[in-house]
Amino acid sequence: MIRFSLLAEDGAARRGRLETPHGAIETPVFMPVGTAATVKTLAPADLEALGAGIVLGNTYHLYLRPGHERVRRLGGLHRFMSWGGALLTDSGGFQVYSLGAGKGGDGEGKGGGPSLVKMSEEGVEFRSHLDGSRHLFTPERAVEIQEALGADVVMAFDECPPALADRAYHERSLARTQRWLLRCRAAWREAEAVKAGQGPAAGTPCALFGIAQGGLFPDLRALAIEEAAALDLPGYALGGYAVGEAPEQMWEGVARDAPRMPLEKPRYLMGVGTPEDLLAGVAAGIDMFDCVLPTRCARNGLLFTSQGKLVIRNARFADDEGPIDPACACYACRTFSRAYLRHLFKCGEILGLRLNTLHNLHFYLSLMREAREAISRGEYARFHAGRLADWSPGPDAG
Amino acid sequence: MIRFSLLAEDGAARRGRLETPHGAIETPVFMPVGTAATVKTLAPADLEALGAGIVLGNTYHLYLRPGHERVRRLGGLHRFMSWGGALLTDSGGFQVYSLGAGKGGDGEGKGGGPSLVKMSEEGVEFRSHLDGSRHLFTPERAVEIQEALGADVVMAFDECPPALADRAYHERSLARTQRWLLRCRAAWREAEAVKAGQGPAAGTPCALFGIAQGGLFPDLRALAIEEAAALDLPGYALGGYAVGEAPEQMWEGVARDAPRMPLEKPRYLMGVGTPEDLLAGVAAGIDMFDCVLPTRCARNGLLFTSQGKLVIRNARFADDEGPIDPACACYACRTFSRAYLRHLFKCGEILGLRLNTLHNLHFYLSLMREAREAISRGEYARFHAGRLADWSPGPDAG
Repeated sequence: MIRFSLLAEDGAARRGRLETPHGAIETPVFMPVGTAATVKTLAPADLEALGAGIVLGNTYHLYLRPGHERVRRLGGLHRFMSWGGALLTDSGGFQVYSLGAGKGGDGEGKGGGPSLVKMSEEGVEFRSHLDGSRHLFTPERAVEIQEALGADVVMAFDECPPALADRAYHERSLARTQRWLLRCRAAWREAEAVKAGQGPAAGTPCALFGIAQGGLFPDLRALAIEEAAALDLPGYALGGYAVGEAPEQMWEGVARDAPRMPLEKPRYLMGVGTPEDLLAGVAAGIDMFDCVLPTRCARNGLLFTSQGKLVIRNARFADDEGPIDPACACYACRTFSRAYLRHLFKCGEILGLRLNTLHNLHFYLSLMREAREAISRGEYARFHAGRLADWSPGPDAG
Repeated sequence: MIRFSLLAEDGAARRGRLETPHGAIETPVFMPVGTAATVKTLAPADLEALGAGIVLGNTYHLYLRPGHERVRRLGGLHRFMSWGGALLTDSGGFQVYSLGAGKGGDGEGKGGGPSLVKMSEEGVEFRSHLDGSRHLFTPERAVEIQEALGADVVMAFDECPPALADRAYHERSLARTQRWLLRCRAAWREAEAVKAGQGPAAGTPCALFGIAQGGLFPDLRALAIEEAAALDLPGYALGGYAVGEAPEQMWEGVARDAPRMPLEKPRYLMGVGTPEDLLAGVAAGIDMFDCVLPTRCARNGLLFTSQGKLVIRNARFADDEGPIDPACACYACRTFSRAYLRHLFKCGEILGLRLNTLHNLHFYLSLMREAREAISRGEYARFHAGRLADWSPGPDAG
């Protein structure tokens, strides 16, 4: 199981340590997304070199391909992808709505509410984005699949409604998500008890995190957090942010919600976000983040730097001998010029996607490391403001 | 400039060392192909870890994108791609015929004779496969471009006719290729003299290799080799093999031609080939090989193993916990199961292409290392026969 310790506080911001069966993680932490059992373009050795301590896997994708029972037979997700660090799996709920509705995609899609998906009290019936086959996810099934994958942290199965849905929809949805959370907890407790009885060969413990929804309605969020907290789960997440609302609406909501979450438990803001979003989340007291943004942007040639964003395909870089970011120490910046990276990108060379991914993840992970250090020094607010100033307007707003 | 030393002979097979301004290379050697200034999917650090000492770049592609003058301004091809090992560039002749005729492709195409290409005594006019623009390559231009790229070995500009063209065509083509070789040598000598006068900052020396053509006509090949040898160039290549003839025809031709090439100069068999082709070439006394086969096959999921070929997408590997090849020590085999590599391939994950590439190049480079060791022991024939037996029929002929 996991163990969370608070090491320092600075306003609402906090520095902590999350101990897992696969290593200790310093928080606040950014978790790279490894949808299909790989952080796209990177090998585990690359992630280790980057200092990533925890990676996210997608239950929906792994359930469909290669199948959770296959992963279980092959020794669990850690062993399957040869990743020695910690893993967190989402519950599949988000992808069921955004991909299962037949929209296709690479599993890193965001937005989109229910459409071809059939929801009931029992669970959610959806179509595979791969072959159109029908599947049913229930709270029990989502836990069963995640237990088979064997991540260190598993997430409750919830509904993630569009932020801007109306109050009545959010009320109904939240009530069901709360009933589902009870079913998730029961299934998880049973699975963990069975596993514990089977001895170490059955796998390491999985820690269930509850998810609080409630859209942009402060009272619904407060209710969701309070009811989830009463269940005394190992950790808690805010879901349903960055799903259609303006960034300022999200920042305001997170600043209000995070301090209401249990102090002594890790707090995870799901699917968020931009560097600005991360800094706002840390300021609010969030400990964990995940997002496809750095990896997806990398594959589209959008790079994050200490001076703001940069579009590597830009013609002005054709003869540029400098690195992506002179202040960056990643392999791509130590080794290659902007001219070369632009050339790779223009040629569609895979190496370019990988170097861009290395760089963007290095940026995100370094940002979190610096945030932790700033919290320890009691200077987070100054650090936060300084970074926002550095990034605006950026050398190449693209 | 380069320096070649013969270290051991075993029948016609030979072991040697090629010293270049960017390191010494043990021969026989396989040179991974880095068409657009990258061996597809791999970083220089990967190539170093594989023990690759020399990589091939494509003049045609680099001329069109990013442009040879740009590469020169950025410090030459070594620096542009951050590769500390040796480089060889082809002359662009082969791609002009196979790609410049408007067939498109990734620069790793093979076959195809002149069609929309306009050939004259002056040179070859062709269309860019990228934008259809017209360009003229002449022997002088091909040398100029390669001097700008600054590879350790540069190749003469030749015509590469289909192996099965008739004798009259081969005679006319060879005569022109021989006249072009004289022009290449003159241009190269002048460029090298100018560079030498400019001091070290102008770049390291480039060694020109002559190319002997002549198709499957023994007397034409003999003539081509004899006339080229008389020019006392730093090295020699056989071109025009593996361009439509049967493997046995090529093996017979190479076995006959290679021993006629100057004993004290490196011998390069261009664009060849399969593991079987390499072993046949080594037996004939060839020192250098290049081919897109291991890298392209890797991206198509075809893997070479000590027991023969394997198609990783095959359903029988879905639950296979073993490595690609239990006898292999590459990163992919040390770290991942066939089940995982199959999963990556089925999902179209870039990491799969990279791991497959690492494995296949490791196979090719190990094969050449073992061939060198067998030559030193005087056991090449036994090694050769043993390998052919091991590979047939293969665990998964696919």
